[in-house]
Amino acid sequence: MRKEMFDHEIKILRDTFGRLLRRHAHTNLSKLILKTHPADLSVVFRYFMDEEQIQVFSIMEENEHTAEFLVELDDTLLANLLENESPERIAHVIQQASANDQSYILGTLEDEQAQSVIELLKAEEQEEIEELMGYPEDSAGAMMTTDVFTLYQDTSCQDALKSLQDQTEAEMVFYLYITDDDDRLVGVASLRALATTQSDTLLKDIMVKRVHSVRPETDQEDVAQIVAQYNYLAVPVLDADDHLIGIVTVDDVVDVIREEATEDFLQMAGAGKDREILLKSSWENARARLPWLFASWIGGIVAATIIGAFEHMLQSIIALAAFIPVIIGMGGNIGTQSSTIIVRGMATGRIEIGSEMKVLFKEIRVGLILGGLYGLMLGLFAKFRFIDVDPMLGVVVGLSIGCSMLMAVAVGTFIPMFLRKVDIDPAIATGPFVTTSIDILGVLFYFVIAGYFLSI
Amino acid sequence: MRKEMFDHEIKILRDTFGRLLRRHAHTNLSKLILKTHPADLSVVFRYFMDEEQIQVFSIMEENEHTAEFLVELDDTLLANLLENESPERIAHVIQQASANDQSYILGTLEDEQAQSVIELLKAEEQEEIEELMGYPEDSAGAMMTTDVFTLYQDTSCQDALKSLQDQTEAEMVFYLYITDDDDRLVGVASLRALATTQSDTLLKDIMVKRVHSVRPETDQEDVAQIVAQYNYLAVPVLDADDHLIGIVTVDDVVDVIREEATEDFLQMAGAGKDREILLKSSWENARARLPWLFASWIGGIVAATIIGAFEHMLQSIIALAAFIPVIIGMGGNIGTQSSTIIVRGMATGRIEIGSEMKVLFKEIRVGLILGGLYGLMLGLFAKFRFIDVDPMLGVVVGLSIGCSMLMAVAVGTFIPMFLRKVDIDPAIATGPFVTTSIDILGVLFYFVIAGYFLSI
Repeated sequence: MRKEMFDHEIKILRDTFGRLLRRHAHTNLSKLILKTHPADLSVVFRYFMDEEQIQVFSIMEENEHTAEFLVELDDTLLANLLENESPERIAHVIQQASANDQSYILGTLEDEQAQSVIELLKAEEQEEIEELMGYPEDSAGAMMTTDVFTLYQDTSCQDALKSLQDQTEAEMVFYLYITDDDDRLVGVASLRALATTQSDTLLKDIMVKRVHSVRPETDQEDVAQIVAQYNYLAVPVLDADDHLIGIVTVDDVVDVIREEATEDFLQMAGAGKDREILLKSSWENARARLPWLFASWIGGIVAATIIGAFEHMLQSIIALAAFIPVIIGMGGNIGTQSSTIIVRGMATGRIEIGSEMKVLFKEIRVGLILGGLYGLMLGLFAKFRFIDVDPMLGVVVGLSIGCSMLMAVAVGTFIPMFLRKVDIDPAIATGPFVTTSIDILGVLFYFVIAGYFLSI
Repeated sequence: MRKEMFDHEIKILRDTFGRLLRRHAHTNLSKLILKTHPADLSVVFRYFMDEEQIQVFSIMEENEHTAEFLVELDDTLLANLLENESPERIAHVIQQASANDQSYILGTLEDEQAQSVIELLKAEEQEEIEELMGYPEDSAGAMMTTDVFTLYQDTSCQDALKSLQDQTEAEMVFYLYITDDDDRLVGVASLRALATTQSDTLLKDIMVKRVHSVRPETDQEDVAQIVAQYNYLAVPVLDADDHLIGIVTVDDVVDVIREEATEDFLQMAGAGKDREILLKSSWENARARLPWLFASWIGGIVAATIIGAFEHMLQSIIALAAFIPVIIGMGGNIGTQSSTIIVRGMATGRIEIGSEMKVLFKEIRVGLILGGLYGLMLGLFAKFRFIDVDPMLGVVVGLSIGCSMLMAVAVGTFIPMFLRKVDIDPAIATGPFVTTSIDILGVLFYFVIAGYFLSI
């Protein structure tokens, strides 16, 4: 219900922008831009033509609001928008943003352009940005906020509150990070704990000592896992000497979780892993999907070759051909069910290392139950529908459905588990690979079983 | 990398628990339980046998740590664990938990048992729990924290800080909620803003006035959308008179996003929507998957009937049968790509109402590109592999692949869009329904095209 309201608000905003753009009502556009939340503006931008995007951006002021808007914008749109923008304007817009927002925006530019912008920024900012941009994509280092500060463990709560008031740079204060004599992180305290404790208590007496932390090179999925598992608002990023170099905040983790889910969805369908695929041209879209269909093309040729080899069998019992779609279809569908359950179970930590065999056996039991049931149902249909063909056709079809479904759960379960074992993202397994293997094996089983039972 | 470390820690914990359980070392078990984070304990529990779970729970103390652990536990395990537990023990364990945690735990019990527990709680708690349990499942009301407080807009920052220190109940203080004379929510201020402002400034002068809020009946997905879109730590829940009745916090939103993604994954594969399917028995698992396979079974029968109707054609050109798998396979795979892109695009707000036709035409262009390419490739293969069969076989196969893929993108794009239009969750479309329609139409196209081009 609310989502419709949300969609509705966005639609009104789109229409208003559209009307003002057509009228070239720049003053009103400026006012509307200022009144619109940067996140909403980034959504509305998806519906503008390229030239409209450039026009709106050209009248946006060079302030924090605009920088926030750029950070919220989809990567593809951001890259298009800034491509032909002058380094001076980009530098002006981002100069008040935080270092990680700056490096994120710069990361979408061509190297040369990014370099020109960096040279226009203040020296200390330059250094920080270059350090941040040096971390691998999708790592904690690349997503962390560096505007953090630490307090010494023997500080009193009163003094801590005062220092906090001086920290105008640090926007995201969720926890206080507390260090020992060697400046190593030894504990955290919540703002809440600070505010409700007697003013002369020392920080070391209220801090929580067991702190989960990550390294700058930790993958963003693992950061997300920690934040989600322990309900944190932020997780500290420590260097090799346990010094605090930044924090990853929960709002960024929310984005990571959604983005990773989208990537997994696309990968499982064999549609690449570009979550902005809807913003890409038809050609780029086709190129991302092409290689995965190739698996299915190869599989098709193999299946055609197998069927070709059993031509003599088909020649005497044409009705066999009629059941090819259902045998591979039932196998494909139950196999996709299995691999989806497994891939998602791995992604959400429900299938830990060591419990694989238990899960595999359970899937096989499910395959036996459903394969038996649907095999029986289809066997009976085949027997009575094609009663004049061969008395054993029903047995062949029923048995093939059963075997195909049993094989499919095993393949659908085994492939993602195997991929994880050899350190490949299991999400890529569900798509064309699993269904193609199932197509081939299903057809093979079918004709072998037919050869055994039918009098040809 | 880090995730492996995480898995590794869980494995060590499991082994330690296992060893202590075998030795019946109750004292050491108690110590280990206290030292283990409730969230970790809930993960380890997945690997215990039923009797081990009951044994461990029986030695857990009746305190907050145990209540937190219960909240983190998977629903299925929680229900099993508490099923035979006395109402007295349950009441003792949960009495210190927050009202929403209490109502969550009670929600997993049988009505009668839940009622017995509620009667053991304090009168004011009873009322609150009954109110919370009255909200629909998956609504903002069911997931909100009610331990909130408001401040009057003319309060000074200094007084606000003092009131804050008295609020020992309210655990999750992220923002200050500010009300007018009629007790209606009119603004929010961050703790941070409070701490860094001069002490005599009034709250109404530092508060942000445009507040996104939800109603208790708002669906959790829409709450998640708002929190994710605007990077909030919490969103206020207001009643019809705009009075604050609770807040939904970001940690719960993180859980919702993961859970909804898992449900969508399973639904798209036609595997039900129970995210705890891995914890269910083989029978329950099979039952959840059975109905979706039925679509594929019906589709198989229809396809078999269509092929049966073209038996005379197959009789003269047996080689036609060889290409049935690849025609439905290529169609199925590209159709799944399309529907996945569309379903996910809708879930993440990238396909707004009104932009459907643009997306559909783009998908059709992609279908033309990929259908043309793979049709050509397979047509050439068919021509040269089965050169002695019929000179037109290559044309038939190539054209059928192309048509099947074009039809598949259209079906895969249209069905989820149509479902959204008629207010059905589009996630259910991708699975067996789309692939089954594609199987049937693909086979039909193939034989119609064959009948047109081949001399039979």
